[in-house]
Amino acid sequence: MHAIVIDEPGGPESLTWREVPDPRPEPGEVIIDVAASAVNRADLLQRQGFYPPPPGAPPYPGLECSGVVSEVGADVEGFRPGDRVCALLAGGGYAQRVAVPWQQVMRVPDRVDLVEAAALPEVACTVWSNVFMTARLRKGETLLVHGGASGIGTFAVQLAKAFGSRVVVTAGSAEKIARCLELGADEGINYREEDFAEKVRADVILDIIGGGYLARNVKALKTGGRLVVIGMQGGTRGELDLGALLAKRASVHGTTLRSRPVDEKGAIVRGVVDDVWPLFDAGALRPVVHARVPLSEAAEAHRIVESGEHVGKVLLVG
Amino acid sequence: MHAIVIDEPGGPESLTWREVPDPRPEPGEVIIDVAASAVNRADLLQRQGFYPPPPGAPPYPGLECSGVVSEVGADVEGFRPGDRVCALLAGGGYAQRVAVPWQQVMRVPDRVDLVEAAALPEVACTVWSNVFMTARLRKGETLLVHGGASGIGTFAVQLAKAFGSRVVVTAGSAEKIARCLELGADEGINYREEDFAEKVRADVILDIIGGGYLARNVKALKTGGRLVVIGMQGGTRGELDLGALLAKRASVHGTTLRSRPVDEKGAIVRGVVDDVWPLFDAGALRPVVHARVPLSEAAEAHRIVESGEHVGKVLLVG
Repeated sequence: MHAIVIDEPGGPESLTWREVPDPRPEPGEVIIDVAASAVNRADLLQRQGFYPPPPGAPPYPGLECSGVVSEVGADVEGFRPGDRVCALLAGGGYAQRVAVPWQQVMRVPDRVDLVEAAALPEVACTVWSNVFMTARLRKGETLLVHGGASGIGTFAVQLAKAFGSRVVVTAGSAEKIARCLELGADEGINYREEDFAEKVRADVILDIIGGGYLARNVKALKTGGRLVVIGMQGGTRGELDLGALLAKRASVHGTTLRSRPVDEKGAIVRGVVDDVWPLFDAGALRPVVHARVPLSEAAEAHRIVESGEHVGKVLLVG
Repeated sequence: MHAIVIDEPGGPESLTWREVPDPRPEPGEVIIDVAASAVNRADLLQRQGFYPPPPGAPPYPGLECSGVVSEVGADVEGFRPGDRVCALLAGGGYAQRVAVPWQQVMRVPDRVDLVEAAALPEVACTVWSNVFMTARLRKGETLLVHGGASGIGTFAVQLAKAFGSRVVVTAGSAEKIARCLELGADEGINYREEDFAEKVRADVILDIIGGGYLARNVKALKTGGRLVVIGMQGGTRGELDLGALLAKRASVHGTTLRSRPVDEKGAIVRGVVDDVWPLFDAGALRPVVHARVPLSEAAEAHRIVESGEHVGKVLLVG
């Protein structure tokens, strides 16, 4: 098969499309013939040499894909060749075929196009696990989403609205805010013009900035609030005001999806299939796709994501 | 009745025993004739003027008491005059009588002396709500308790051991560590001689130091670990390493018990009566009392607690 290989860490030009050995299914794994993958920020870090794949993961980038099951290893439950699926990967999505533990594989919701389904695993599992499983967002509560126009942001807006929450987003342009409002957000704050901590009080905050926003995020929490940090685009360290945290009986959670053991990923995936996919069937959610780029031209897709101008996901089509 | 009154904030001598009006039961309240109260660190802060009682609370210090129900207001469920009880108070325990919402009242476990029962409400509700409800300590996990010889510490050691966890404590002397080991702790670290963050990795940390320990507490967490900060004796601010928090998928929780609304206190109290009191009946837990001081001599009790030499609770006997 062909895959995107990183011979030397560096810029987008480090991504080379070439022939590599086909994966073989270990016990518990299925092989997916990839229809599409999608770009995640972690892929940019991996390309630059900062985010090596966890032990046992394929060396190629790509944390998610959609496609058709072509082989099934021993001890696999619930999947067989020909199934339309998408999957959460520890790596290897930028390839024509990928092996993945069956626990991380999901059927594609009936109303979702097979290629567009590649936009879903990371955002659905990230938002479900962080906003609903960890932070337990409840109906009627307010969710603040930083980077509302990102892949994760656009999904978080839709899912939280579908579950009856109020949603406030931050984004860096009027156009991005307008897109978030179209997706259902109740309020948008342009972080280049206004300080969100002066404008909103939230029960749950989903944050990708990290250190640079820590003090303001704690300030923006309501009593009983939960701050979930899933990215550190604004630094890895910040001063925590424990006085405010105690007075608000609040909490700060840090998580990553990629490094979780297979059984934890499996629990998240089951939650997504049981509780999120029905909302696609009901028409309440849809994939938000900014661009489709051929998988062999992954460098171009990385340039789009690095520009920060996109709304939703950039797909890599096999 | 008589109560301890703080006319002017200041040292222990600010605590004056004098006549004050009797409390009357509002709907939903019971009156307890106080057998004993106990000293909490928050009382010292209140005496110094730093921790005013929440709105509606009695002005006298005292966050817990034991005694006998003498009056029952309208709309009270489950209590009647003559009941042996102890209670979590928003204030007013340093008095001969106190009014308290029935949701915060607990029967006294059969095998516990009525006076010694005053040692239980704060420590039982604090440890249950933080270590078990918030941090969800599980059997086989490791709990690190800072200030293991304190009232909260001595209770946390016993309760966590009773539920099958491994318990490590920090304390400031060999004598205090020896007492913690007698109560069941598996390991003790003298914080004056060793850095706990070099010696232990914990699933849950119960912390009373705050800012001064934040960095080392995060370092001492295992993957999936939960740090619960309930005191800030070492400062209100500290640098949070979000990189470590994300890599460990860990969380930092800040809580206080006193400021919670009555229904939240009620949920904690029900959990304590249902899940903790049976361990007293079974002989697996016991109150740890350092000294009994007459309620009228509360100043002396404050001096003992301020000295930091005590192990367990200092009672104020009515």
